[in-house]
Amino acid sequence: MKPNIKNIAVLTSGGDAPGMNACIRAVVRTGIYNGINMFGVLQGYQGLISNNINPMDARSVSNIIHLGGTILKTARCLEFKTDEGMQLAYDNLKKHDIDALVVIGGDGTFTGAKRFGEKFGIRVMGVPGTIDNDLYGSDFTLGYDTAINTVVEAIDKIRDTADSHDRLFFIEVMGRDSGCIALRSAVSSGAEAVLLPEKDTSLNELITQLETGASTKKTSSIVIVSEGNKDGGAYDVAKKVKERFNHYDTKVTILGHLQRGGSPSSFDRILGSRLGFAAINELLKGNTMQMVGLRGNDVQTTSLEDALTTHSFKLESDLLEMTKVLSI
Amino acid sequence: MKPNIKNIAVLTSGGDAPGMNACIRAVVRTGIYNGINMFGVLQGYQGLISNNINPMDARSVSNIIHLGGTILKTARCLEFKTDEGMQLAYDNLKKHDIDALVVIGGDGTFTGAKRFGEKFGIRVMGVPGTIDNDLYGSDFTLGYDTAINTVVEAIDKIRDTADSHDRLFFIEVMGRDSGCIALRSAVSSGAEAVLLPEKDTSLNELITQLETGASTKKTSSIVIVSEGNKDGGAYDVAKKVKERFNHYDTKVTILGHLQRGGSPSSFDRILGSRLGFAAINELLKGNTMQMVGLRGNDVQTTSLEDALTTHSFKLESDLLEMTKVLSI
Amino acid sequence: MKPNIKNIAVLTSGGDAPGMNACIRAVVRTGIYNGINMFGVLQGYQGLISNNINPMDARSVSNIIHLGGTILKTARCLEFKTDEGMQLAYDNLKKHDIDALVVIGGDGTFTGAKRFGEKFGIRVMGVPGTIDNDLYGSDFTLGYDTAINTVVEAIDKIRDTADSHDRLFFIEVMGRDSGCIALRSAVSSGAEAVLLPEKDTSLNELITQLETGASTKKTSSIVIVSEGNKDGGAYDVAKKVKERFNHYDTKVTILGHLQRGGSPSSFDRILGSRLGFAAINELLKGNTMQMVGLRGNDVQTTSLEDALTTHSFKLESDLLEMTKVLSI
Amino acid sequence: MKPNIKNIAVLTSGGDAPGMNACIRAVVRTGIYNGINMFGVLQGYQGLISNNINPMDARSVSNIIHLGGTILKTARCLEFKTDEGMQLAYDNLKKHDIDALVVIGGDGTFTGAKRFGEKFGIRVMGVPGTIDNDLYGSDFTLGYDTAINTVVEAIDKIRDTADSHDRLFFIEVMGRDSGCIALRSAVSSGAEAVLLPEKDTSLNELITQLETGASTKKTSSIVIVSEGNKDGGAYDVAKKVKERFNHYDTKVTILGHLQRGGSPSSFDRILGSRLGFAAINELLKGNTMQMVGLRGNDVQTTSLEDALTTHSFKLESDLLEMTKVLSI
Repeated sequence: MKPNIKNIAVLTSGGDAPGMNACIRAVVRTGIYNGINMFGVLQGYQGLISNNINPMDARSVSNIIHLGGTILKTARCLEFKTDEGMQLAYDNLKKHDIDALVVIGGDGTFTGAKRFGEKFGIRVMGVPGTIDNDLYGSDFTLGYDTAINTVVEAIDKIRDTADSHDRLFFIEVMGRDSGCIALRSAVSSGAEAVLLPEKDTSLNELITQLETGASTKKTSSIVIVSEGNKDGGAYDVAKKVKERFNHYDTKVTILGHLQRGGSPSSFDRILGSRLGFAAINELLKGNTMQMVGLRGNDVQTTSLEDALTTHSFKLESDLLEMTKVLSI
Repeated sequence: MKPNIKNIAVLTSGGDAPGMNACIRAVVRTGIYNGINMFGVLQGYQGLISNNINPMDARSVSNIIHLGGTILKTARCLEFKTDEGMQLAYDNLKKHDIDALVVIGGDGTFTGAKRFGEKFGIRVMGVPGTIDNDLYGSDFTLGYDTAINTVVEAIDKIRDTADSHDRLFFIEVMGRDSGCIALRSAVSSGAEAVLLPEKDTSLNELITQLETGASTKKTSSIVIVSEGNKDGGAYDVAKKVKERFNHYDTKVTILGHLQRGGSPSSFDRILGSRLGFAAINELLKGNTMQMVGLRGNDVQTTSLEDALTTHSFKLESDLLEMTKVLSI
Repeated sequence: MKPNIKNIAVLTSGGDAPGMNACIRAVVRTGIYNGINMFGVLQGYQGLISNNINPMDARSVSNIIHLGGTILKTARCLEFKTDEGMQLAYDNLKKHDIDALVVIGGDGTFTGAKRFGEKFGIRVMGVPGTIDNDLYGSDFTLGYDTAINTVVEAIDKIRDTADSHDRLFFIEVMGRDSGCIALRSAVSSGAEAVLLPEKDTSLNELITQLETGASTKKTSSIVIVSEGNKDGGAYDVAKKVKERFNHYDTKVTILGHLQRGGSPSSFDRILGSRLGFAAINELLKGNTMQMVGLRGNDVQTTSLEDALTTHSFKLESDLLEMTKVLSI
Repeated sequence: MKPNIKNIAVLTSGGDAPGMNACIRAVVRTGIYNGINMFGVLQGYQGLISNNINPMDARSVSNIIHLGGTILKTARCLEFKTDEGMQLAYDNLKKHDIDALVVIGGDGTFTGAKRFGEKFGIRVMGVPGTIDNDLYGSDFTLGYDTAINTVVEAIDKIRDTADSHDRLFFIEVMGRDSGCIALRSAVSSGAEAVLLPEKDTSLNELITQLETGASTKKTSSIVIVSEGNKDGGAYDVAKKVKERFNHYDTKVTILGHLQRGGSPSSFDRILGSRLGFAAINELLKGNTMQMVGLRGNDVQTTSLEDALTTHSFKLESDLLEMTKVLSI
């Protein structure tokens, strides 16, 4: 049975991810196309609490599909973790007669959405928006493809300068718990080695690998280091390698937040459009407390419960194997 | 039973596609890693005929993963369609004791490979390398993702200048028989309309759509035209629209061959690496007369026979539906 | 003697040029820094006539320095050429007590500004904003550097695919009367030939040049064609060359309006910042009816009279000579 | 009187700079155009000592104008600082009858070239190739424009994510002794503050500036830090600011060597072409022991003596003033 939904709000929360604007555009226009009144919440859950909720029409999302960041902003919001904060948020939604909420973000965002939905019975649909690709239920999260392309373009530039035998480049990329960005970046850039949070790579192993490269006349070596790597970030690893291997000239790049920005790739724009389109359609079909995600080439739903509690190892194991074969 | 393969050659044929170099690198290094002697054939089938076949080592594919085009070049080769040409090609392969051939290209390439394999019993493995995404057996062909990103970046720039009410931009993209580039580009760039070879779009329909846009205060309109569109290319369509709708200022861009070039996206580098890696592994397992392709997130094989004779409609139907909803 | 200026308005007019937003930002913030009330006029002279004039504060130009296009929009405005239109414009300026006007645009813009300033005594300062680099008084106009970079990136991609002996690429770039974009693009991209509006290049000469290239084993040839070239645009030239030289495979790209867009280069952002900063400072010093421009590395003023009537041949003659030497 | 020059060699030395390949191409082709036999020296002065000197023809510099790095490589070479090393280098040049040397690099390169020229009477012409823009005699050095664009594109991405009130981004850019990259990057990216090696900026001053920004509702703040800044690099400064200003969330990016790479901008390709063209022409006119450089829009020569001993403060003072006005 189709629910009686008249007003839907959308918010973005957590770290920015390229493609969020494409998704907001799809959510708003798909809603309007289906006769729904659409609202945008500024600064994530903080905007719910402070009633920063505004009507959106089809033109309000014009010319945003190509923009990085999110026009709805995000913010950290501790208050939404309290009962009082949630109550305020709910009261504000009711002022606008809002029946359902689309939340775009990562696991922190979904945790809040799930509690909120359970507590007040408000309909909720999640869209996985995070560059880290660390959510169960979607093979690719929004922003992941763009972030990898950003990293790879940076490494391409470093490679231009890397043509001497005795030089080692250490590049730190995002990923506290997830090595997804690091692994795909390593394969795409032809890096000589990659250090991931999910794996204990001994320094000895790395050094052996670098020495093998040197002996086969590689002109340079690039090592990708996840920020969550167990032996420390790029600076720490570079220092330790230098101690053991002092004829090497070591250079460090920390990409930092530039990985969160930039115009989204085509892949992320299409993913954002698809997931936003699906989020509204699922709500209109009566679904709630779920996340829309990409599996293979299809959009499918996963319960927020499963998305939050299933700890899948998302590292692509064939890529991990390939890094060794292809960097000989 | 594993075949006795000692020497493998790789060639690229047909139109260039970004990611071909990543694939060549993967083919060569995976072969060497497995103890095979690897050879590169210059200028496609022409190089087989003129014996332009050279040994490749791991270093010969260093620093190429990020380059557009193909280090092995491609060429048109009518001679390979003749029995004499094929015989010359085969004789040259035998001079180098080459047991198997990896061919990277599109359907023309595979047609040649299939005949060649059938005629001489040489082992053949195909890799789908074409920006058009028009092959059965791989959801994405090598170069397609990069080509779309190239188109989308171009349209983003056009959008910057498109802020007046009475201006229409017509952008012609590649695709004689396939609207894949046009469709994904349209969704990614938020185009107002898209004309595809697979669909008869009446001019009336387009004009109605543009008028609706104008009435809802769209500040500009972008129309993507596949080169294979039935009403003609971008110039022709612009002219016809102008005749009917003369208060519009129409502007035309023909992207042309720049869509074939450029540094491959991360997606295409990974795809090229995966398919090259798989191509060698499939040959070593004893498979032949097949194409490796991406289905969902997995690499799978399809017989060349099927790849060439199955005419799948590869346009993503959900995207086609979405273009209407999302461009309101 | 310093004038008593309290309120200044800024507008952009004519074709968009990357860097206009950087300039608007500099104009607005420099004004505010000096205690002036600043106003933005939307859609150029049309906004003066329709009183689309709004106060701007320092925050209203935040996060725009990197954007292509112009946040103030531009529009064609025939009405401003009439006495009635000018009177309306003046009356509207007076409603806001506006003492001076900064106009960013090309020669059409300056022609209007000069008449307006003469007629009503309003203080006027021009900033050369046009990708064509066709104004006297500034070695570089705003947007020119970005446009060339855009063209060059496109040609780089085409070059990736250009590795066969018998292929000719014709790329049409902007410039109805000025070959500046074409010439710098040709030198930067290593093009084999360039056809400019300022020069009568016989087809025979071009063909001779291409034949010489072929005989010296050039693997491909790229010809840049200004849209204002006397033998026609890229399509026409390609057709004529093909007739004479039929073993060549000719390919055409028409870049069109994408040359007007894109995020401005650092050079254009600095130029826009400098010229905007100078425009306000010149007005505050009491200067009027002038244009600020870059000469060598210095910002200097030129009277609008001189900017409009001096017909300088801006093609850099050393570059013209170099194209021949460097494309051997 | 014109010298009798028949053979000229070219080398690149010191840190890579984008545009070096454009310059090598211009040197080689201008030489050949003038009937000179041209040679390329691999790995800078090291290649002179180890006789890594090869003939170059017009085709050997095809398709390199757009590539970052240098096809001739660079290397550190302590041996060239010794009399024995210089003697070996000279002997090798004589083996090839080389009459003159074009050296592309920075002040270390020129110091070596000057001593070498004085000692052996070999003709020498320098081309300023360094991203740091720290040489007297050329307003812009080769690679500087590209490096700034690289930095600015990185900061643009960071800005996408910077929309919260309490976030500070510290971006470290190259420049041990020269703040040129930092200053132009700061103006181009609209940074809130910039810390330069040439200036003692007290931490108090920076904090005051950031607090002012906060009070005027700036949504974020970006601080550019030269690696040679007296209070330390970006990490150190971020740490000190955090101690004093603990409600701020500070984020650090270290761009590192990616600033040396990348496809050269049009400006650097033209500059490289011009300077390479001029270097040969100056040698053929009989000039030696000089550097060619860009002053205003003209190519002029400076003696190596002056280039090395004149310590000009190259920071553009108007830009320094503008950063304060424009970041209000």
